Amino acid sequence: MPLIVQKFGGSSVANAECIHRVAGIIAETYSEGNDIIVVVSAQGATTDELIAKAKEINPAHSKREYDMLVSAGEQISAALLAMALEKIGLPVISLLGWQAGFVTNSSYTAARIKKINKDRVAAEIDKHRIVIVAGFQGINKYDDITTLGRGGSDTSAVALAAALHADKCQIFTDVEGVYTTDPRKVTGAKKLEEITYDEMLELATLGAKILNNRSVEMAKKYNVKLEVLSSVKRASGTIVKEAIKMEKMLIRGVTNDTDIARISVLKLPDNPGIAFKLFSKLAANKINVDIILQSVGRDGTKDITFTVHNSHGEKAIASVLEAFPNLTKENVVIDTDVAKVSIVGAGMETHPGTASQMFEALFSQNINIQMISTSEIKISVLVEKKDADKAVSAIHDSFFPEEK
Amino acid sequence: MPLIVQKFGGSSVANAECIHRVAGIIAETYSEGNDIIVVVSAQGATTDELIAKAKEINPAHSKREYDMLVSAGEQISAALLAMALEKIGLPVISLLGWQAGFVTNSSYTAARIKKINKDRVAAEIDKHRIVIVAGFQGINKYDDITTLGRGGSDTSAVALAAALHADKCQIFTDVEGVYTTDPRKVTGAKKLEEITYDEMLELATLGAKILNNRSVEMAKKYNVKLEVLSSVKRASGTIVKEAIKMEKMLIRGVTNDTDIARISVLKLPDNPGIAFKLFSKLAANKINVDIILQSVGRDGTKDITFTVHNSHGEKAIASVLEAFPNLTKENVVIDTDVAKVSIVGAGMETHPGTASQMFEALFSQNINIQMISTSEIKISVLVEKKDADKAVSAIHDSFFPEEK
Repeated sequence: MPLIVQKFGGSSVANAECIHRVAGIIAETYSEGNDIIVVVSAQGATTDELIAKAKEINPAHSKREYDMLVSAGEQISAALLAMALEKIGLPVISLLGWQAGFVTNSSYTAARIKKINKDRVAAEIDKHRIVIVAGFQGINKYDDITTLGRGGSDTSAVALAAALHADKCQIFTDVEGVYTTDPRKVTGAKKLEEITYDEMLELATLGAKILNNRSVEMAKKYNVKLEVLSSVKRASGTIVKEAIKMEKMLIRGVTNDTDIARISVLKLPDNPGIAFKLFSKLAANKINVDIILQSVGRDGTKDITFTVHNSHGEKAIASVLEAFPNLTKENVVIDTDVAKVSIVGAGMETHPGTASQMFEALFSQNINIQMISTSEIKISVLVEKKDADKAVSAIHDSFFPEEK
Repeated sequence: MPLIVQKFGGSSVANAECIHRVAGIIAETYSEGNDIIVVVSAQGATTDELIAKAKEINPAHSKREYDMLVSAGEQISAALLAMALEKIGLPVISLLGWQAGFVTNSSYTAARIKKINKDRVAAEIDKHRIVIVAGFQGINKYDDITTLGRGGSDTSAVALAAALHADKCQIFTDVEGVYTTDPRKVTGAKKLEEITYDEMLELATLGAKILNNRSVEMAKKYNVKLEVLSSVKRASGTIVKEAIKMEKMLIRGVTNDTDIARISVLKLPDNPGIAFKLFSKLAANKINVDIILQSVGRDGTKDITFTVHNSHGEKAIASVLEAFPNLTKENVVIDTDVAKVSIVGAGMETHPGTASQMFEALFSQNINIQMISTSEIKISVLVEKKDADKAVSAIHDSFFPEEK
């Protein structure tokens, strides 16, 4: 029998009504002759409530006890979903992370899966039971509970799909699939039938927020066929897979990230090793740098500009001043009034005209490009924040013209 | 270092304020130079909330999934209490039932502890960490979560105290100890300094509701010194231990149980085997019978009267009619308007006048005795329900006269 892993997020199991709807989806898949492993997140509000309790008692609690606390959330939703399936007479069993064999490292609150001891899950599947697994959690070598961090349930699902050689891993969300751009903002946004892992990774990094990056990386590594689809509307979603035999599309999507800050460091000495000094300091302070731009040296000095996540802006400035104590504050300029607009698509590798088509679209709207960054399958530009939505629309209209 | 097990019930950890108070008690005990294992129940409302969620989704859920669900409650309270101890800078670690080595049989929702693999707890105690254990739960041989049923956290605490050879097991409750009778009803009720396991067992069976019976039985079996004390008022409580060297007190307490029904079966044939036939049928239908009274045979018939728990009244009548199909319904009479008033005390064994002193107290208030039952350390009488409180007061005044 085909084996399908289905993952449902917190909003999909938020209350009894949602849980029954999810049970209906599972039952339908089961009745079509599939074995099923279900990975479930904590109910919508549970995690927030637990975190609020922890904060009230001790905001400086340890990460170990935090994991002990919040992992109760998935335990609750897993048991409730199992009960909903019992109600419609299906054979079902819920398992916690450790019961499903999830062994992680010891980075509490952000653990990495080391291996899955799949015996228990495999035995239950052999009995054709529907196996509900509490997502987001595992145990480390001390038998302590660990959690996988943000988007951890996606990772749990993909890891199980890889370990059990599932035929498909379906990620149910509140959207109907992966779109060419944000459908709430751009009319004419199109749902993609298919997308490659790499394209999905670029879209995820750029803030599409549909699939956790680690889970996509893992799916790529173990060649797990992913499907992103809606838990509310019954329709086919977007398949994420290897590029083989995939229709070559120029670009897959246009994204917009406004949670960034641009930092310019002016009048640095134009000597070798300056960039190394700057970025090694930022790395040491755990600040992820995205786009980097360095001016050509002039008058013995040069400027370096880079972007970081919004929340790291102040820390980045401090790091710069740490790296170059002789710099005055006036020479380190931060601008949070920026947005990064990107296009992603494996097809652009072989289409040299992609970048110019993007720039043309921006020019047509009189939008100034502050910075440019390119990879094999992605082109990003930095624009003023106020121009971001207009930029996305213009680019999208250019690459995905309305069908007449 | 001495090792103390402390158990806190759901009301003791109901909110952040309560949890900090409990943390204060633990910290004080720790600062006095003790190692401590803490067993904690779910927060006051949590279990009820979880049960309500289960009922909403599927009232006919399996017991296995019920245990999976509700055991999350102790997980939450254990982690929160650990965080509260972290706040005051104490070394602490919380453990779930399975992490603390609780292995049970597979009777979901009412599991029995089979053994405790104490290595993990012992290792943490060796490091002088305060170990918080989620009470009420364990795992069976399938690695499924089980719960111990009503009062299960008491049992968890005593079992840990036995396994780790703790010097004392303190059960913190919302009363200050064991009283000679219900202090809310009888002025002059006295707190006992000490009580034997057997006396405590009789009191518990009779409805004193302070300590779960299984935990007292286990404490007796493994000779665990128990102390019942208040989690709110700091004062010594009541010690429960073997009778050796204990001050011999005539009786320990007076109790009152109004949740009973008296059933009279009239005009049974006066043949051998009639009682066996009746009570084996009741046993087969899982009805616990308490007091039994059989009349002397007359005219070839006899009457048998017995008491059962209130909720089993109708089922008991049905069982009687099942055992004796020829009986008419008029010959099976139920009376729920009764109460069982009892005195308990190891001292009465050697004091033949105890029963008559009790009966005299009842006579002085003109209270009619319907049935009498005696054991070595207990005398129970059945009276009309309306007389119950008066009976308790009269007996209590007789055995515990007000000090002038």
